[in-house]
Amino acid sequence: MLINNRNYTSIWCEEEKIRIIDQTKLPFHIIEEELRHTKDFFLAIKNMKVRGAPLIGITAAFGLALSLKEDSSDKNLKKTYTKLLSARPTAVNLRWAMDVLIKEIEFIPRKKRFEIAIKKAINLMKEDIIKCKKIGEMGFKLIEEKFKKNRRTVNILTHCNAGWLATVDWGTALSPIFIASRKKIPLHVWVDETRPRNQGALLTAWELKNENISYTIIVDNAGGHLMQQGKVDLCIVGSDRTAMNGDVCNKIGTYLKALAAHENNIPFYVALPKSTIDKKLVKGVNMVEIENRAKEELTEFNLFKNKKFHKNKIYFDNENIINPAFDVTPSKFVTALITEDGLVKANSEAIKKIFNSNVT
Amino acid sequence: MLINNRNYTSIWCEEEKIRIIDQTKLPFHIIEEELRHTKDFFLAIKNMKVRGAPLIGITAAFGLALSLKEDSSDKNLKKTYTKLLSARPTAVNLRWAMDVLIKEIEFIPRKKRFEIAIKKAINLMKEDIIKCKKIGEMGFKLIEEKFKKNRRTVNILTHCNAGWLATVDWGTALSPIFIASRKKIPLHVWVDETRPRNQGALLTAWELKNENISYTIIVDNAGGHLMQQGKVDLCIVGSDRTAMNGDVCNKIGTYLKALAAHENNIPFYVALPKSTIDKKLVKGVNMVEIENRAKEELTEFNLFKNKKFHKNKIYFDNENIINPAFDVTPSKFVTALITEDGLVKANSEAIKKIFNSNVT
Repeated sequence: MLINNRNYTSIWCEEEKIRIIDQTKLPFHIIEEELRHTKDFFLAIKNMKVRGAPLIGITAAFGLALSLKEDSSDKNLKKTYTKLLSARPTAVNLRWAMDVLIKEIEFIPRKKRFEIAIKKAINLMKEDIIKCKKIGEMGFKLIEEKFKKNRRTVNILTHCNAGWLATVDWGTALSPIFIASRKKIPLHVWVDETRPRNQGALLTAWELKNENISYTIIVDNAGGHLMQQGKVDLCIVGSDRTAMNGDVCNKIGTYLKALAAHENNIPFYVALPKSTIDKKLVKGVNMVEIENRAKEELTEFNLFKNKKFHKNKIYFDNENIINPAFDVTPSKFVTALITEDGLVKANSEAIKKIFNSNVT
Repeated sequence: MLINNRNYTSIWCEEEKIRIIDQTKLPFHIIEEELRHTKDFFLAIKNMKVRGAPLIGITAAFGLALSLKEDSSDKNLKKTYTKLLSARPTAVNLRWAMDVLIKEIEFIPRKKRFEIAIKKAINLMKEDIIKCKKIGEMGFKLIEEKFKKNRRTVNILTHCNAGWLATVDWGTALSPIFIASRKKIPLHVWVDETRPRNQGALLTAWELKNENISYTIIVDNAGGHLMQQGKVDLCIVGSDRTAMNGDVCNKIGTYLKALAAHENNIPFYVALPKSTIDKKLVKGVNMVEIENRAKEELTEFNLFKNKKFHKNKIYFDNENIINPAFDVTPSKFVTALITEDGLVKANSEAIKKIFNSNVT
């Protein structure tokens, strides 16, 4: 998608060199960075230079592939896999992408491994773009429907950033919005600030600005009020892991928005590639490991001033804090999943069907 | 209540001089300030040097009284009333307190007006302390009940600051907590950060710290997750205006917490003096004027560094923002109101009864 009218993806591969945009500096600084060693990949994921379930998956796949260039042994493969997996516990795509890669190379002679792995990682990256575009086309229909029905600007609320920066390109929750905008549907997006890391105010708002889409930033507290006032036509969010019964794990605060949407009869959609569905997870509530992140994410602000970032403590108390990064929305509050295969009801039967018909 | 083990109230009157603590500087700086002229009172309320429905009411009463010292005419009385009323549109106590004062003096000779008005304002202030203490005692029973039932630490979630700083002393939502703590009930409070002004992380946390009560600050997004995890035994919040049918207007985000409490079978209490109930308001949803405050509250952080405050822009976008300060929780999500007269069901019949039996 566009940054200052130039096309970008969030990760790319140039002659076996993996480059990313450091998302912790966005939107103030557009800094490209090369990831070379396993440690670079691990830290890029852990410190959220790359974030978003699909992008984390692709990054880990490249990390695993590149590690085979130096050492293609089973031992190194296992070590790297374990290391990268530990970077973030909740997003299932991390495991999924590496599993796909390993399946491809485990019975391949060592000297061929790197070559095949990097090709597969590149393929996964390209497939991610295609999947996200498809998610966009599927979700677009929902927005178009609303527009045809109401004949006025469609108001969409989203939480956190599930835009192109959370994937390779297009995004999940924002993909239908980007496509609807290009197809000239009049749109307005309510952007949740998304404390504590403010990915809504920083990343989602910026993505929308670059695509010339009308939006308004609100505090996370305001969404329920707007829904009650009839100012939201639909909600679309992403997911970090979805269970086989349709329970959706996503950025902390998603659950509250789903409750408000339900109460106000507003459709609540979750956009995700099928790779975000954890086939081993029968249900989500109380079952997904919720990552607890550092207290500093809540108590420090990284201010950009005079072309530099400065960390600033904002509260008197830096100790009595907890910072769970995700929550789980029970499937009964999810209108449908928007996947690359189309709309899927958030229940076991419907979800099983998409895997049975077309095993990924 | 205590600040560094010294007893304070949020407003006081010394030889006809009205003094407040400037709450925009708390908890970093404890700055006392004298309010002299109508303009001082207006700005103190508007800029939230004093905030919280009960405290706003008392401050306005003092403002109105003091203005009569300079000019005790009906014209000035009306002008001051209108001016102070315009400082904040949502909190009904502002109107209530001034109406009580005017009733007392409207048929009194001009030269006696100031003397009587200031006495009445002092009385209102003293009564506020008594009412809040009573709210605390009534609410305490609910906490005690939970403790007796579960025999473990009682976990209470609160939103924004409805502590002693929002009243003259004791607070509304926090009053039961202060009393339970002094009666040695084991307690832990989940403190919502409360974006955009962060009164939870700044004021509520600080009040609890000063009273030696265990607490944890969380982002506003986290409350639903904690409730789903069984980590919240009850919620207590304050109110800026409550309708006769029990719909509760309170700090933006309250509604989302009420929905989550309802979904998870957690009692959701609203603590308020009867003066916060707007007798003219039949219902709250879509009926209360919701104050929209400045965008800067969301996009700027007032950092305290090297003993000074510095305003800092935190986002790239300072324009596409809206900042509604309150929302309305429908009465069906309110377990009960905790008033100075005891627990009151959040419905018209029960609320009418407390006014009929004892008209204030």
